[in-house]
Amino acid sequence: MSIHSVKRSQSHLAWDNSIPPAIRVASGSTVSFDCLDASNGQLTATSTPSSLATLVFAQLDQVNGPVYVEGAAPGDTLRVDVLDVQTAKWGWSAIIPGFGLLADEFPSPALKIWTLHHNEGSAASQGDSEYYGYAWFDEEKGIKIPLRPFAGEMGVAPGKPGAHSTIPPYKTGGNVDTRHLSKGSTLYLPVEVDGALFSIGDGHAAQGDGEVCGTAIETPMQVTVRLTVVKDKPYVKTPHFTAHSPHGRDEEYYCTTGVDSDIREATRSAVRHMIEFLVAEYGLTSENAYILCSVAGDLRMHEVVDMPNYVVSGAVSLESIYGVLSQTAHLISNRSV
Amino acid sequence: MSIHSVKRSQSHLAWDNSIPPAIRVASGSTVSFDCLDASNGQLTATSTPSSLATLVFAQLDQVNGPVYVEGAAPGDTLRVDVLDVQTAKWGWSAIIPGFGLLADEFPSPALKIWTLHHNEGSAASQGDSEYYGYAWFDEEKGIKIPLRPFAGEMGVAPGKPGAHSTIPPYKTGGNVDTRHLSKGSTLYLPVEVDGALFSIGDGHAAQGDGEVCGTAIETPMQVTVRLTVVKDKPYVKTPHFTAHSPHGRDEEYYCTTGVDSDIREATRSAVRHMIEFLVAEYGLTSENAYILCSVAGDLRMHEVVDMPNYVVSGAVSLESIYGVLSQTAHLISNRSV
Repeated sequence: MSIHSVKRSQSHLAWDNSIPPAIRVASGSTVSFDCLDASNGQLTATSTPSSLATLVFAQLDQVNGPVYVEGAAPGDTLRVDVLDVQTAKWGWSAIIPGFGLLADEFPSPALKIWTLHHNEGSAASQGDSEYYGYAWFDEEKGIKIPLRPFAGEMGVAPGKPGAHSTIPPYKTGGNVDTRHLSKGSTLYLPVEVDGALFSIGDGHAAQGDGEVCGTAIETPMQVTVRLTVVKDKPYVKTPHFTAHSPHGRDEEYYCTTGVDSDIREATRSAVRHMIEFLVAEYGLTSENAYILCSVAGDLRMHEVVDMPNYVVSGAVSLESIYGVLSQTAHLISNRSV
Repeated sequence: MSIHSVKRSQSHLAWDNSIPPAIRVASGSTVSFDCLDASNGQLTATSTPSSLATLVFAQLDQVNGPVYVEGAAPGDTLRVDVLDVQTAKWGWSAIIPGFGLLADEFPSPALKIWTLHHNEGSAASQGDSEYYGYAWFDEEKGIKIPLRPFAGEMGVAPGKPGAHSTIPPYKTGGNVDTRHLSKGSTLYLPVEVDGALFSIGDGHAAQGDGEVCGTAIETPMQVTVRLTVVKDKPYVKTPHFTAHSPHGRDEEYYCTTGVDSDIREATRSAVRHMIEFLVAEYGLTSENAYILCSVAGDLRMHEVVDMPNYVVSGAVSLESIYGVLSQTAHLISNRSV
């Protein structure tokens, strides 16, 4: 089987159906992409918080492609099987002023550079049910983040003409930032133009549902997908996907909730309460707690019908964050008191 | 250890700190509650859709209690350990006009009566990692719902005087309808009045995150909790909880998304798309698909920061819905195509 390649330099900064294809492939082809991180190379393993001040926003969230898939026509579905995701050995997370769910409460910039420890023989051991490796969040406190890399951006060109920013997600995909789209998952995208014009980017080594502070563990990646045109799924009008939970064992989690008549405010409240919990119980700074929620906390909607109030929770997995587990042994053992 | 009891008749229809306690117990006491279903006995195993027309809404969502816990004072936290939940052998789910996330799209009433099959030796086998039993959703199609019972309502009296409806959830809990609060979980509630005045009700045999059609598998239940006053958690200002995933194996799920600039609309869109998927792939009626989403589908927020659009998904677990798993073997096996 030949694998097609899209180079690091074959990237673009907008979803625009007039951008010429980087390559053309037959349906069912496997394509490997070499992608810079979402800063488009502006941040590196040696960056400092002051580096954020000179970030050029117009250069962010480039995607690699587009790939013209032969036989794809408007109304079809593009099936994207995620075959492999390999990351660099470093990553970054940031609080960027004006960006993030609690932007008004976190006005100052913060930058965290991560060292990403890949599992030995990473390509072989990155099975569907296993983590790819880990990164220390706080070695002194023993808090470790399990890695499960994915592409934050996967999308096809919109039918609507013009240049559309790669920052928001669309019905045709793009910056969906969906952590479940790791190796072994399958994404379905609605095709709006001939050839679909698929692009990908925004490597994430780990992220929670929500990406609340605005960034995941951002990292350069090599990602390989199989692209197949599907004709029998007219009901796919937004991204659909199949995925699976990362490991075959019980998962213990701590949840905080927000209860409010506005879902967004309920969500903000749930995250704020998780930050307060992490600060109170683990002595984190609120900035670090916010970043921890973004890379390892999940947003769930528990109740959306008992009006006028919604219940949204932020969940931090106590087992996934290995270090937190050992420190919260008292929480768990107390269950039998 | 003595177990205190609250009888079926000891119920009330509003959160109101002037309601006299049903019983008074010491902190750390175990209390068992005998609860009718959320219809307050208006629906039974022999009800028909026409029974919905005569439902008296003012009688819905009664809660049993209140329990005065000695030593609890405003500013404290009430820790609620869920020790056991036993359900009746029947339950109901309904589409009630004017109620539910897609109320405008489902104007007609529907009622589903379920037979609940408890696992043999249910009390013993309802381990933390196991399901309590199952209910056929559609025996002909082979779709089965795993049961994991919990109380939809758990709360304490608000400090604010007056009678507050038991339909909405509040910062002091109440109708939080959080499926994770099954046996083995621990809920923390902020205390606003002396004695906390804890009440419970709204038995659910199964529900997804969101309870999108407005009802779970509603059922009478016997629920046993331990109530403990905690003084060192001032950060608990809304319900917090610890819980754990229901089984120790990989879980495969199918997700549809909604992408919209309004989180509620994104959520509605995700559910609408799941209904369309279930109708197209499994030949369900849209009403039954809506109910299936409510009792077995989960709402997750994947991305809440890449403005102006949010990404919310509805997820149906393909393994949990045993029948769906066997029917979707083609979806899963196609991954290796």
